[in-house]
Order: sequence, then C-alpha cells, then structure tokens
Amino acid sequence: MHPDLSTGAAWMAGEIMPISQASIPVNDWGLIHSDITYDVVPVWDGAFFRLEHYLERFFQSMEIWNLDPGLSADEIKLALQALVSATGLRKAYVAMVTSRGVNVVPGSRDPRDCRNHFFAWCVPYIHVIRPEIAEAGAYVHVAKSVRRISPGSIDPRVKNYQWGDFTRGLFEAKGAGAETTILLDGDGNVTEGPGFNVFVVKNNRLVTPDKGVLEGISRQTVLDIANELGLDVEVRTLPLEELQQSDEVFITTSGGGVTPITRIDDYIFSNGAPGEITSTLQKTYFEWAERPENRTEIDYAP
Amino acid sequence: MHPDLSTGAAWMAGEIMPISQASIPVNDWGLIHSDITYDVVPVWDGAFFRLEHYLERFFQSMEIWNLDPGLSADEIKLALQALVSATGLRKAYVAMVTSRGVNVVPGSRDPRDCRNHFFAWCVPYIHVIRPEIAEAGAYVHVAKSVRRISPGSIDPRVKNYQWGDFTRGLFEAKGAGAETTILLDGDGNVTEGPGFNVFVVKNNRLVTPDKGVLEGISRQTVLDIANELGLDVEVRTLPLEELQQSDEVFITTSGGGVTPITRIDDYIFSNGAPGEITSTLQKTYFEWAERPENRTEIDYAP
Repeated sequence: MHPDLSTGAAWMAGEIMPISQASIPVNDWGLIHSDITYDVVPVWDGAFFRLEHYLERFFQSMEIWNLDPGLSADEIKLALQALVSATGLRKAYVAMVTSRGVNVVPGSRDPRDCRNHFFAWCVPYIHVIRPEIAEAGAYVHVAKSVRRISPGSIDPRVKNYQWGDFTRGLFEAKGAGAETTILLDGDGNVTEGPGFNVFVVKNNRLVTPDKGVLEGISRQTVLDIANELGLDVEVRTLPLEELQQSDEVFITTSGGGVTPITRIDDYIFSNGAPGEITSTLQKTYFEWAERPENRTEIDYAP
Repeated sequence: MHPDLSTGAAWMAGEIMPISQASIPVNDWGLIHSDITYDVVPVWDGAFFRLEHYLERFFQSMEIWNLDPGLSADEIKLALQALVSATGLRKAYVAMVTSRGVNVVPGSRDPRDCRNHFFAWCVPYIHVIRPEIAEAGAYVHVAKSVRRISPGSIDPRVKNYQWGDFTRGLFEAKGAGAETTILLDGDGNVTEGPGFNVFVVKNNRLVTPDKGVLEGISRQTVLDIANELGLDVEVRTLPLEELQQSDEVFITTSGGGVTPITRIDDYIFSNGAPGEITSTLQKTYFEWAERPENRTEIDYAP
C-alpha cells in the first residue's frame, strides 16, 4: 500500500493516487462554470452507509444537469470500493464527482462540446461540526447578510458546489463565534446550512423544511427512523420564529449523522444541552448504521 | 518558446506552462465550493484593453469575498504580461483567478483555514458569440425554466464561476437553436447572460439594467462612448416587454465588444440586421481599443 493513501486518495480515470496528486484542468467547466455535481457517502466501521441511496441521488443529479459519468452505477460502486480499500480507512468521507469537463472544440461556449468525466476521492471522515463541540450541542448563526439561492435559480436537489451563499454565511458565523450557519429563503423561512438539513422538535413533533433544500440522505434516514419510532413528523415551511421557539433543534448530515444544536443566535434550546428526542434519534441513527441492510461492506484484503 | 504555448498557457506559482499541464487540486475550495473569483481581460492587437479597469474590479471582487492573491496589482500585471508574451498571442483571452485553496487544517470546514492562491491562464481569443454569427446579428433565447440568482444570494458584482442558472439557460437556448441566453430576475426584468450585459435602443435612447448584473467593463466602455457621442442613456430596471418592443438590441462583452442581437425568441429587431446605433457603437468600441490611453502594450521580445 502506498504510504500516503491513508491521509487521502483519489480515483482518476481508473488510477488510484494520493489525493495531493489528483487535480482537474484550470479550464474544466467543472471549475470555470461550477458545472459539476457530486455526492458524498460516509464510510463507518468499514462499510458504506446506505450506498444505494447516495448512488441513486448522484445519478438523479447527473440526469437533471445532463452530465454523463461514462460509467454505470455498478462500475462506480467498484471504483469507490477499490478507492476506500486502497486507503485502508475504516471511517471515511468519500466523494464521487462528475464534471462537465474541458470544451474540446476550440472557442466553443457550448456545454455540449465538453468531455464529461467522473472521478472520486476519499479522506479521513470529516465532521460538519467538530465532535467535541457536537457532543455538547453546537452554536449556530442564522445568516443576516445573505439568503439561500432560490430553487428557481439553482435546483437544490442537485447536489452542487455553488456555495457562494453558504460561504458568505460561514464568514458571518465564524465572525460571530458560531460553528456554522443556517440560511433563510427570500420569505424568511428556514432552508438549510452548508452540508446539512435542519430539524426542530416542538411538543414531541418533528418539523423539517420541505422546499429549497437538498433532499438529504441523512434527513431521509431520520424521517425513516421517526416513522419506525412512531414520532410525528411534518415536512413543510418552517418560519424562523418557529425555529427560535422550538424545544429542540438538530441538524442531519452525512458528516456526523444527527447533531444537536443548543444555541441559535441568542436563543438557547433545552437548557443548553442536547434534547431528549435529539439524543434518541442520534443513538438510533448510529444503530441503523450497524444494520446489515444499510451496510455495503468494503473488502480491505490486498 | 515552448511549441505548445500558442494554443494556451498558464502562470502557476511563478511558472509558465502549457495550459494542458495547469490544474488545481480536486479538494481546492475553488472547486468544491466554487469559492473563487476571476476576471478576464482581452488582448487586442498586442495590447491589454483597459487593463487597469479589469485589475481594479478583480481586486474589488477579492476584497468582497475575503480572498488574498498574495500579490500586488503590479505583480499581477507583470505575471499577465509574461504569460501573454510567452504565448506570442496578439489577440487573446486572459483569465486571472484567485481561489480559496486547499484547507490546510485536517477536517476543518472553516474557509479561514485555506491557503488562497492566484493563477492566470491565456488562450486564443474567445468570442461569446461566434464572429460569423455576430456579424449578421445573433438569435438569443430568454430562459423560461430558470431565473438569475438573486443579488441577495450571490453578489453579481463579484465575478464568479457559479453559473448554474446560466448553464440551464444555455441548454434551453441551444435546444431552441439560439446562440445564447438572457436571464430574467424574479420579477421578470432583464438581467444579463453568460458573459455579457444587455442594452436596448428605443427612440435613439440606450437602456441597460442597473441591478442584478455584473458591472461589465465593456458595459462601462459603452456608457463612456455614449457619453462622448452625446447619446442618452438610462441605467435602470428593464422589463422583458420593453426588451421585446425595442428598436435595437445588443450585448457587451470582453469576448467580442459590442455584438448585435437581431432576434430574441420570436421578436425580430431592425428588420433582422444590426441596427444603426449598434453599428456606430460597435465601430467606436474598436476605435477605442486603438487609443493609447486604453492600451497596455505587451513586450513580445524574448
């Protein structure tokens, strides 16, 4: 095994290499027009979690944006398995990416003249909120200077790298001493944050926004868990005031599962500690990660 | 001189190389969050056109987005001159770019932990609308399925690669047989297209949108020319209906200067040929490119 691969590796055109050697051309449309889609599947304890769900969404994103990876879902699955196996990582963040590519017709401004290409990369697991912070419950800032890009401009169901709004919100949040940010839509309703969906609990009932958000796999997993546990859930518009007045708040992300939020701006939830329902969902989420039907085992044999 | 440089070259960390060798890491935030700004200055007849204007806007974009190129404006100017000189190109498209870079703190999601970097690349001149089409007047499609990203989400004055809305519009336009697309804002007013601003002429008066658009250098050049020629100009909201009912339509871009539009959807302008005022502005624009005060000469001596 290459000594560098455990800090990160990439699969590029069938070849596995240290991530520091993996790059894309400066005139790839994936860079110069952010004409690129991706997905990120977590690896826990040596297995992909709900891999079929991530692959399905990835193919949906590519279909909506007319991107062709040049590989079948099965071929991508094999590439991801080879990649993670080569790193030896048993807990990892695995990105699959399809880019529009370089325009091969000189002077053309037509996206149909680009050569699409798929690649993947893998690094040690990344937490959206650092675990030592997440355990006690995180402080999140609602962005004031920026609103989430409207679904009429960029379809948020297509997982994309166009994070201009999130990045402005992140700068605001970091300046306020918060861990991350939540963005509102043009009407002042809650949407999502950089890499996560938002849930609130009020009177034992869960609410999560229905529109203007990525349909997160972790979000879906929580909806599935809530169904199994018999919890009431409403998927609908979530006004900021309702977020502020809720009993508990948590976020869902492939980068940490269910993560409790104990403070949003000047509002403190469940006395500043993770709430009861949040903790139950968090525990159940990790139990689900151990269920055979949610695991795609990785063969680490050389 | 390297044999390949005349088809494109890049300046990366002080080194000049064929563009096919210039790349950025797959985990650079410039790619994975489109956290990157750029500008493009045209070279005509061996000189940069209005270089100071482009540099000023580039530094404004970097300031708004907290990006540090690590170089002064004078150092960037020297890099661009060395780059174009090495290619020998006398008519070129020259991109200057500053990216957020790779996050150097393992697992960090904080943009402040990234190592920003500047690079530049240069290819033979790219026309936003192919010259053989532009000469007769182009057919443009107003996007129906997508609206321009709101200024409240991404500040359009910061020249950016987040073209998700433009790319959807381009696919629509190409499907309709048109050359390119114009996007409306959420209220149905005209904004801009991928790489250009929009002007209309009605009763000898120019109108161009004031909000939700890049403050294009070519747009400013046309405003300056109009001022010198004594033409009336209004910079204000431009409803779609007014675009459709105008006498002449043209676009302004560093990739072609003033380019006549003779058809928008089913509306034909000035009997399908470039209009009189458009033609005057087009001619004057190229005259301005020859004025010494607008030219920064490139030294092509080896």
